[in-house]
Amino acid sequence: MAGRECSADDSVGGATTHPKETTDMDDDHKDSRQIPATMKALELRASDGRPESLVLVERPVPRPGRNQVLVRIGASPVNPSDLMFLRGLYGQKKKLPIVPGFEGSGEVIAAGAGWQARLMVGRRVACAAPFDGDGTWAEYMVTSASLCIPLRRQTSIEQGATLIVNPMTAWALLGIARQGRHRAVIQTAAASALGQMIVRLAARRNLPLVNIVRRREQVELLRQHGARHVLDSNEPDFAKRLRELCRELNVTIAFDAVAGEMTAQLMQAMPKGGRVIIYGALSEQACTVHPGSLIFEGKTLEGFWLSEWLKSRNLVSKLLTATSVQKLLATDLHTEVRARLPLEAAVSGLEQYKNHMTGGKILIVPGGA
Amino acid sequence: MAGRECSADDSVGGATTHPKETTDMDDDHKDSRQIPATMKALELRASDGRPESLVLVERPVPRPGRNQVLVRIGASPVNPSDLMFLRGLYGQKKKLPIVPGFEGSGEVIAAGAGWQARLMVGRRVACAAPFDGDGTWAEYMVTSASLCIPLRRQTSIEQGATLIVNPMTAWALLGIARQGRHRAVIQTAAASALGQMIVRLAARRNLPLVNIVRRREQVELLRQHGARHVLDSNEPDFAKRLRELCRELNVTIAFDAVAGEMTAQLMQAMPKGGRVIIYGALSEQACTVHPGSLIFEGKTLEGFWLSEWLKSRNLVSKLLTATSVQKLLATDLHTEVRARLPLEAAVSGLEQYKNHMTGGKILIVPGGA
Repeated sequence: MAGRECSADDSVGGATTHPKETTDMDDDHKDSRQIPATMKALELRASDGRPESLVLVERPVPRPGRNQVLVRIGASPVNPSDLMFLRGLYGQKKKLPIVPGFEGSGEVIAAGAGWQARLMVGRRVACAAPFDGDGTWAEYMVTSASLCIPLRRQTSIEQGATLIVNPMTAWALLGIARQGRHRAVIQTAAASALGQMIVRLAARRNLPLVNIVRRREQVELLRQHGARHVLDSNEPDFAKRLRELCRELNVTIAFDAVAGEMTAQLMQAMPKGGRVIIYGALSEQACTVHPGSLIFEGKTLEGFWLSEWLKSRNLVSKLLTATSVQKLLATDLHTEVRARLPLEAAVSGLEQYKNHMTGGKILIVPGGA
Repeated sequence: MAGRECSADDSVGGATTHPKETTDMDDDHKDSRQIPATMKALELRASDGRPESLVLVERPVPRPGRNQVLVRIGASPVNPSDLMFLRGLYGQKKKLPIVPGFEGSGEVIAAGAGWQARLMVGRRVACAAPFDGDGTWAEYMVTSASLCIPLRRQTSIEQGATLIVNPMTAWALLGIARQGRHRAVIQTAAASALGQMIVRLAARRNLPLVNIVRRREQVELLRQHGARHVLDSNEPDFAKRLRELCRELNVTIAFDAVAGEMTAQLMQAMPKGGRVIIYGALSEQACTVHPGSLIFEGKTLEGFWLSEWLKSRNLVSKLLTATSVQKLLATDLHTEVRARLPLEAAVSGLEQYKNHMTGGKILIVPGGA
């Protein structure tokens, strides 16, 4: 069911800025006084990447079910995975129309049944969208309590908005490298926000890291951030230099957000037994892998999905990780913010962002910047 | 160093059929009286697949080093992997000129130092070629003692010649399925000699098996051999039927000898967590894999190489497996032999075989058929 499309009046301060009608919720829902009946949200109506397929609408505020919470969204970022989702290229499909936005932050203002959900009420949290439901580009979102991470007092709502997708992924990937006792790591898309976090985390841990970027200016950028080994995949001697570095540093694991031909190159460059872990597909191509790498060299190809990783952790381990990660949010895991846009300006803001994804995040701020 | 090319006279009973000059070996080599100084061998001079690149030559008989044995070859088959090797398409490269032939059987007539090698002397064995040296398409071969499997009295030299590549692989693959607790299996290239062995072994173990073939007549062939689920990958509804069968039988592991697009199809058809294991590349294409299968569905891609599998077993486990496999050589793991060719007729025989690989094996029989 699509929401009611907002008129231009709505979006510049029409009906929706008036005090909203409130609704009674059942006993499972706390703080019902604060919850309006409707909210503004961005609604995706077709996964074709056209600006007009993303529409600002007025929708009923959703109600949390068992083990779910209702979050009043404070801020939510535009990540590369969101852009893929808008274009129908993200691997995880949702039924349209849908509110996009995979992560955000805000305050939990109501909960369904279940102790974990109830414990969250009143807390400031970082939150991920449910696997099959509406996301964070709205004033409110219902999600599973297990997809919420309580924020420390020192963590701002703005920092919390980008806590999950990039910092937690960087932390998790380097954890996989450590657990597998890999002595050195390759990463592709190294100039991305996530890539830069991996650069800083690896440096802190003295883990040798080979960074692969796709443009010459990104080589300089990463060098300035202290990266020691940076290769431009468009240089003619790229494959040779990658092989040499892999041998020199004994790199046996690669984190790949590019896929396509890059996957085969990573696999061929590493010594026997190397692992490639795919966590993105910026090339928008299928991974290619030479059978010989698998058969004769014992190499393997697998994937990483943060949602699955989070689900696989118990609550204690998740909270410990979240605390460690939050302590680094101002330094190694810092996210640079380029712009803060209200929901009303998000569609046009997105169009500008698409072409410059490495210059800092755009935040959607439903309450206004 | 290339051997001396044999003239037509040689190959129809010239110099090499006369009693050969013998050579003294050092004390490490037993039975030196029986060992001639030179032998006939097929020598590959270019990996271009042209018949004239494979030449019958006269070469010195090689000497076994530490932990190695000298085998007087009784018979050796022409496998699909050998044909790939002749064309330079096999993943494991060797320096040219080289004697091809990955497996065979014969008698161990000398050994270098090392107890395991010495224990083999006088035994009839199945044997695999060393990773980097000359193979079985010759009168004699030196290989590692660990790549020899003693034959039971009931196993003929002819049966032993095809013991390793197909029967041991079939046994090993189904062992991997069992170890991973997979309840059902897919295999591609199911009409191959190896594929048919897997059909019979799986039936004996009541393991549901989905067989994929590439021609309609192979569907009938496999049905006659008792295969229950057979899909022709050229049928228009192949992908849909494969998905349905995977769901119905809960197939979570696939053994793929085709690679290319087939790999992506197998991966997409299986439910979450499915594994694809590549052990061949008959399509001569790189495997393709959709990133979403890896990231969101936790699927993995790996390889299988019998040589590595054999190396990873201890001697006792290898001998136990070899005994089990030999007991089934007359039934489930039977190899049909189509023709027996002396070395002199092998090159022309190969040319005929190339086009009909599913009609029974060609054996090269250095001592004459």
